[in-house]
Amino acid sequence: MSDDAATDQLTVVYGAEEVVVGPDDETGVEVLEDAAVAAVDGTVVAVGPTDDVLDEYPVEDADTVLDASGQTVLPGFVDPHTHAVFAGDRSDEFVAKLKGKTYEEILEAGGGILRTVEAVRTASKDDLVANLTEHLDAMLEHGTTTVEVKSGYGLDTETELKMLAAIDEAGADHPVDVIPTFMGAHAVPRGVDTDEYVEEVVSEQLPAVAEQGVAEFCDVFCERGVFTAEQSHRILEAGREYGLTPKIHADEFAAIGGTEVAADVGASSADHLLQTDAEGRETLVEGDVVPVMLPGTAFGLGAEYADARAFLDAGHEVALASDFNPNCFARSMGFVATLGSVGMRMTPREAIRSITSAAAKAVDRTDGTGTLRQGSPADLVVLDTPTATHLSYRFDTNPVSTVLKSGVVVNE
Amino acid sequence: MSDDAATDQLTVVYGAEEVVVGPDDETGVEVLEDAAVAAVDGTVVAVGPTDDVLDEYPVEDADTVLDASGQTVLPGFVDPHTHAVFAGDRSDEFVAKLKGKTYEEILEAGGGILRTVEAVRTASKDDLVANLTEHLDAMLEHGTTTVEVKSGYGLDTETELKMLAAIDEAGADHPVDVIPTFMGAHAVPRGVDTDEYVEEVVSEQLPAVAEQGVAEFCDVFCERGVFTAEQSHRILEAGREYGLTPKIHADEFAAIGGTEVAADVGASSADHLLQTDAEGRETLVEGDVVPVMLPGTAFGLGAEYADARAFLDAGHEVALASDFNPNCFARSMGFVATLGSVGMRMTPREAIRSITSAAAKAVDRTDGTGTLRQGSPADLVVLDTPTATHLSYRFDTNPVSTVLKSGVVVNE
Ligand SMILES: [Zn+2]
Ligand SMILES: [Zn+2]
Repeated sequence: MSDDAATDQLTVVYGAEEVVVGPDDETGVEVLEDAAVAAVDGTVVAVGPTDDVLDEYPVEDADTVLDASGQTVLPGFVDPHTHAVFAGDRSDEFVAKLKGKTYEEILEAGGGILRTVEAVRTASKDDLVANLTEHLDAMLEHGTTTVEVKSGYGLDTETELKMLAAIDEAGADHPVDVIPTFMGAHAVPRGVDTDEYVEEVVSEQLPAVAEQGVAEFCDVFCERGVFTAEQSHRILEAGREYGLTPKIHADEFAAIGGTEVAADVGASSADHLLQTDAEGRETLVEGDVVPVMLPGTAFGLGAEYADARAFLDAGHEVALASDFNPNCFARSMGFVATLGSVGMRMTPREAIRSITSAAAKAVDRTDGTGTLRQGSPADLVVLDTPTATHLSYRFDTNPVSTVLKSGVVVNE
Repeated sequence: MSDDAATDQLTVVYGAEEVVVGPDDETGVEVLEDAAVAAVDGTVVAVGPTDDVLDEYPVEDADTVLDASGQTVLPGFVDPHTHAVFAGDRSDEFVAKLKGKTYEEILEAGGGILRTVEAVRTASKDDLVANLTEHLDAMLEHGTTTVEVKSGYGLDTETELKMLAAIDEAGADHPVDVIPTFMGAHAVPRGVDTDEYVEEVVSEQLPAVAEQGVAEFCDVFCERGVFTAEQSHRILEAGREYGLTPKIHADEFAAIGGTEVAADVGASSADHLLQTDAEGRETLVEGDVVPVMLPGTAFGLGAEYADARAFLDAGHEVALASDFNPNCFARSMGFVATLGSVGMRMTPREAIRSITSAAAKAVDRTDGTGTLRQGSPADLVVLDTPTATHLSYRFDTNPVSTVLKSGVVVNE
């Protein structure tokens, strides 16, 4: 390989105390000690003991070299569930909730999701791009290299398209890989009948979204008082006909059949799962649907966490996501991993799997994203800590010192 | 004043969306909008509407100028309870606890506080200074300008003196104000009778600590199985005779009379207070003892939070501290404020009072530390957020953009 060094871009990160290489069913993730990673043109070509890797890929041939002594190397974090494109400010609702106001009272006072919808309808696409870019910057600083972003604060064709265009534009100019999801069925617009709105999503929004060609996934909020299992099924099937892979918000407040819908339509993930019982878990596992849990939401509300251990103890993997939205201002997947540990009793290594390879699976990234093995994308996070465990243990500071996307340092 | 500008050091921070000036019994803290702060030689000389402050202290006369448009200015954070000087690593115990190991099992396996004691006894003073300096750097980055640091991992005269010397040395070279506390009575050394150890603390450690002249406070872990109320009383009274102001770890696992001891000996603070009942609260309030709560410890263990609302709803203030130690790797007071909100239902402004003026009171800083009023030390934190509330609302990223200590920018 070293003959090609002049033309190919060689990246070498060496001397790391630990390198997390990928999932391990026993411990969460497989970890190599005193290890190195080499990549050519953004693809990992070697991972192993530092001496071996440097023999084959000497640092003097490399275009990018990182001495990771005293540090830990992980696959770039994957955040598989966010509502990161929005406008307006809802910090006052955070205060209102602390003062004991109920969700209903906040809605009555003009708060909640429909307030964000108003703000997003009014915002220009450029505003949305600027807002999202700022959030992508913060995510990258905290180690995220791949993020899913949903539309769903438009609730009309024009605004949903505007959001997806903003996601597309912000992603195109940013080192973070941005995965766009259409979520017209995020809520029912004020004063609109739910069945009529479902009809609009299916026969008006979806064709327009498909024509626009940005969205990769279609998501639905299947919840009591929002969209029924039947309505969710219809929307996700329609989305699939347009080539959009289904995802579903299921069992957050009530288990109304979202897990069955997920398995039926072949969803890549079912997300939230606070009310999921043993039967629901089995449905997801048999349907090969990745369970995605969102501990930031529970943390921000001082509420209960989903039961990750029920999946893990049965030998199944769980993904974690930030659920970043105006109601859950979480942009650090390291912190989400910490919550996976302190809130959900995942070991730090289980939590790392859940924000890397398992999270990649939740967004259908089967190219090795979320792992550091031969052939994986060279998306790397370097932590200024002696082990991967310290990501959760040092819980309130950002330990990320360097992020590489496709073999290139992107956070300096 | 502007005539003196050539000799005095003038600092002007202007155009802030919000400036938190000090405690307010109604809302937590008093907040000025579109405001500025001016300081001369490290002392605040004016706080008010930007136009008024700039009239009197024009930016062209200032040695340090900060345009805080779109930002929020708070008093530097005060962290009134840490065990920040230590050696060794106990991240493995964090994992063991997540796997369900009890505190007793961890102790039996050689873990717990006595493991840190071993590491600190072995460490050189220079090692301790280096470790503490790294932590002070992280604290400063997160807005702390005053921090209390306890000894108590020596449990013998020599090592306690070494720890206090390290605290003194690290503090002397660092922008963060470091307040040293002697806590020989942090635990009972292995194989030593508690009464004998109390005798050693009183008649051997305390005189040596007093002669060394570093420590300002004396603290005791008053807890079932550690030091009784009577023993705690004796140590704190003895400390007071040497000029050390008492503090006490009280009611963490069991209420064994620590609050009464605190009031009796005139402690500046009683800390933890997880088991404190109405009578204990009344004892503290009547004794003018500041209640200090440590939500990071609860968070890290996935345990219960202390009842801050019981004090607040009765009109009394509460201080929050990080309790930073190998068992609670918390160095961000902004995150501690977040935990005060999501874990203890304090409003963001109540939480800010608890990490500024109330925390200053807990460490007997009566010179205006923790406030930004005429005569206050010019210790300022500038947040990259439009309101002070966003400190808690944006819960997993560090919003601190600039820190000034005594009117000088110290975090660049
Ligand atoms: Zn969501
Ligand atoms: Zn303590």
